[in-house]
Amino acid sequence: MFRTAELQRKLPKEDYLQLVPPLREDLLLTQMELRKADFPVIVVFAGVDGAGKGETVNQLHEWLDSRWLITQAFGEPSDEERDRPEYWRFWRALPPKGRMGLFLSSWYSTPILDHVYGRIGLAEFDERIERIKTFEKTLADGGALILKFWMHLSKDAQKNRFRKLEKNPLQHWRISRRDWQNWEMYDQFVAAAERTIMKTSTGLAPWKIVEGYDERYRSVAVATAIRDAVRFRLAEAEQNSGGEGGVQPKPATPGHALPPVTVLSSLDMDKTLAKDAYSADIKRYQARLNQLQRIARERKVSTLLVFEGWDAAGKGGGIRRITAALDARDYRVIQIAAPTDEEVAHNYLWRFWRHIPRAGRVTIYDRSWYGRVLVERVEGFARTREWQRAYGEINDFEAQLAERGIVLLKFWLHITPEEQLRRFKEREQIAYKAWKLTDEDWRNRERWADYELAVNDMVERTSTRQAPWTLIEANDKRYARVEVLKTLCERLETALGAGAKRALSAGKTAKKATKQSVAKPTPTKES
Amino acid sequence: MFRTAELQRKLPKEDYLQLVPPLREDLLLTQMELRKADFPVIVVFAGVDGAGKGETVNQLHEWLDSRWLITQAFGEPSDEERDRPEYWRFWRALPPKGRMGLFLSSWYSTPILDHVYGRIGLAEFDERIERIKTFEKTLADGGALILKFWMHLSKDAQKNRFRKLEKNPLQHWRISRRDWQNWEMYDQFVAAAERTIMKTSTGLAPWKIVEGYDERYRSVAVATAIRDAVRFRLAEAEQNSGGEGGVQPKPATPGHALPPVTVLSSLDMDKTLAKDAYSADIKRYQARLNQLQRIARERKVSTLLVFEGWDAAGKGGGIRRITAALDARDYRVIQIAAPTDEEVAHNYLWRFWRHIPRAGRVTIYDRSWYGRVLVERVEGFARTREWQRAYGEINDFEAQLAERGIVLLKFWLHITPEEQLRRFKEREQIAYKAWKLTDEDWRNRERWADYELAVNDMVERTSTRQAPWTLIEANDKRYARVEVLKTLCERLETALGAGAKRALSAGKTAKKATKQSVAKPTPTKES
Repeated sequence: MFRTAELQRKLPKEDYLQLVPPLREDLLLTQMELRKADFPVIVVFAGVDGAGKGETVNQLHEWLDSRWLITQAFGEPSDEERDRPEYWRFWRALPPKGRMGLFLSSWYSTPILDHVYGRIGLAEFDERIERIKTFEKTLADGGALILKFWMHLSKDAQKNRFRKLEKNPLQHWRISRRDWQNWEMYDQFVAAAERTIMKTSTGLAPWKIVEGYDERYRSVAVATAIRDAVRFRLAEAEQNSGGEGGVQPKPATPGHALPPVTVLSSLDMDKTLAKDAYSADIKRYQARLNQLQRIARERKVSTLLVFEGWDAAGKGGGIRRITAALDARDYRVIQIAAPTDEEVAHNYLWRFWRHIPRAGRVTIYDRSWYGRVLVERVEGFARTREWQRAYGEINDFEAQLAERGIVLLKFWLHITPEEQLRRFKEREQIAYKAWKLTDEDWRNRERWADYELAVNDMVERTSTRQAPWTLIEANDKRYARVEVLKTLCERLETALGAGAKRALSAGKTAKKATKQSVAKPTPTKES
Repeated sequence: MFRTAELQRKLPKEDYLQLVPPLREDLLLTQMELRKADFPVIVVFAGVDGAGKGETVNQLHEWLDSRWLITQAFGEPSDEERDRPEYWRFWRALPPKGRMGLFLSSWYSTPILDHVYGRIGLAEFDERIERIKTFEKTLADGGALILKFWMHLSKDAQKNRFRKLEKNPLQHWRISRRDWQNWEMYDQFVAAAERTIMKTSTGLAPWKIVEGYDERYRSVAVATAIRDAVRFRLAEAEQNSGGEGGVQPKPATPGHALPPVTVLSSLDMDKTLAKDAYSADIKRYQARLNQLQRIARERKVSTLLVFEGWDAAGKGGGIRRITAALDARDYRVIQIAAPTDEEVAHNYLWRFWRHIPRAGRVTIYDRSWYGRVLVERVEGFARTREWQRAYGEINDFEAQLAERGIVLLKFWLHITPEEQLRRFKEREQIAYKAWKLTDEDWRNRERWADYELAVNDMVERTSTRQAPWTLIEANDKRYARVEVLKTLCERLETALGAGAKRALSAGKTAKKATKQSVAKPTPTKES
């Protein structure tokens, strides 16, 4: 979930100096318009210590007119507050219509810290999250615009930042023993954060994860998001009062946007695998997969594979390398194209639920429910609210699969636009491949940047610990196919536990299983 | 919550014979229109055994065209189903667009029974309820119309029904040892049901509680509700496609409605209290209240009182009899009239949150947040979705008060229309009372029936174990005032525990506290 915020995104000073003046003007104008509006704006800041929550709020105070801004930070409750229900202090701090309220260490703080430090168990943690959802729903239903920013830093980046602050005599006081204590709990903290964000990122009160690595980047990212969201809502309100019916407001002008850095641009697209190594690896992993699937079938562990990727990225070839290793009775490949009549007549998730495998089997989805947040989003087949809502619906769907013990793998096969063009031209040349290339493929290509953004959001919102995305560098087909097989074997081995490894090495293919193949797994690229 | 479904409502045979033919015609026509519509209808039946869930579904099959009807009952999961996530079987049973699906012992059954029989604790029960909410939200967001009927019988009525069935040689097989086992668990069952309904009655998938006492009544009640809801949605869809903007569809024709029986019509309005008894009682309870409040203040237990009722029902008088017994520093009376500018600029609940008392104090609301579901509903100040949503928002608000240990009492002072007229006329006569009577009072009177329905729904949806409504027969002012004081004393005593009773009898007023005053509390009229 946080991989998209560990890209070390920076905004160079020159760009910053160019972006900021028009942004400030926009912000002030937007704020002025907001004052006449019929709704309040509630902005919540949460995230990793040192990721710049406080600094960002200070920056906003500088850029906006602070007379119409209310900032609230919640520390230990006062006597007055302790005497009343917990949320009393949040209720009384809410901004009225036409104003903006910035909330630091808000209703999210205590539940997350209490859980991280083991003061409350998972069940109570979930109850507290429920309370948050209900609270925000009440406010949003009442018209409030709610924006939530999760400021993120990787564990290393957090350490570096703390060290740097400690060395600075003027900033030294900022870092306490408590901060280092929290740092020690980084992994638990991130796990709790992921759960919180998944459960509370609703259509009405979505989270935006912001990388806190660079001060200029994060300030501009947050301010831009606030400007755009408020403008969008103002436009919506205006249209509604105009009574034009179909609420499909134009998005705010995207001017002065940040240069896009996505999770895809961080991949090393030069990875290759030599032919010889490829042949050996493919055979080895296929043999291993075959064994693992036998064990999985016996133990009634189902596997569900999702393949997404650019046109011509090699999904089909990747799938064939898997099915070649499986017993035909054990697997099914589901091609997701236009839905059937029957499928159209149901909820969009229905067609995916139908194909969930029986215990011990494998289902491979060639494209999947992620169409909702990719093609349907980019092509406008789904309305904004629909695809935004879909992240939560998908997470819930996948959580149910995980609870049932189903092993779920999601692959995004990534190629560069240049490589895609090369493959398209190759297809045109080769008769038996020409059918694969359609006008639609060329059209999709034109929207590369939109798709790339959609992929980035998809990974950000749906790559969870239970169901992580694996991003595969697929410019080299051989490298990609081996990566897919390897990842699948490793996930299956983990899911089947130590027993599977023993069975594997004792099994028929023991002679083939070289030391290398059961060596410790390479760090996964799971996000 | 279930009090509104324990009124032994019956539909006489003659009325039934008159109502049914046009109702059947409506149902068939509605169903025909539905076939062309872009949404499915999902009808869930749940409730007390013997309250006629199965019979009602059978009746609907007779009245509707069963070719377009899908009925699903879920027993023990099959092998196929056990192999997959729990909800797989519900997903595959969903009706397509244009059809209606009737669900018996659906996704609600297992969680409730598991909890009643102690197989899962409260935390897991809540998690399962969360799953239900997410499931229904996904469907509703996708366009499905979801109707849920909770068929209710009182514990006695259920026993009688079981006995009757056992005696009937043709029906005898219906009652098993299991049914009696469940009956023994009636109270736990109803508690679990209340929790479930409170948490899952959302604007998009509301529950309707139906009294199952009389077969004719319940069939007509359910069928009418289905007809009206489908028609309403069809009208809404038509308006939306017409692109007329403001979605405020006309309600379906209320024709062939059931004669209204409300929770108010079940009250015995002839109750009175003689003058002598009144004087003695008032003094006694005031003394007791004074003592109790001293203890409450010491123990930091806050009290929050809500007074609602008809115009001229005696709210002010009731409140004065309470405040007379309290130290002025300990209480505040909040008159809820038109909101201030500042209050208008916030969420409608904000003005009530503000006044929550500090620990150990008393706040009395003369009218309250219930205005949202009473006057704002009846006068159309709130949109349908807004007041429907308010039940859940209010329950959540009150749950937070209860969790904080605040004692919450809600009184509805009920008078008959005749008594109100008498009081209005009296006010006109007496100079110092004339100011109390406004044109609005006369206008409200004309909408008596609408208000009565709104009160009934309010009690049904917001009378919970934590925050029950107390309905006070207030035609006789003396009787009403003593009832209010008595109820308050009893609730405080329970809240303060045994210690308070001892302190009371040992205290200064011990001589005054006659045996009668600490006698076992009369059964409350809590709903």
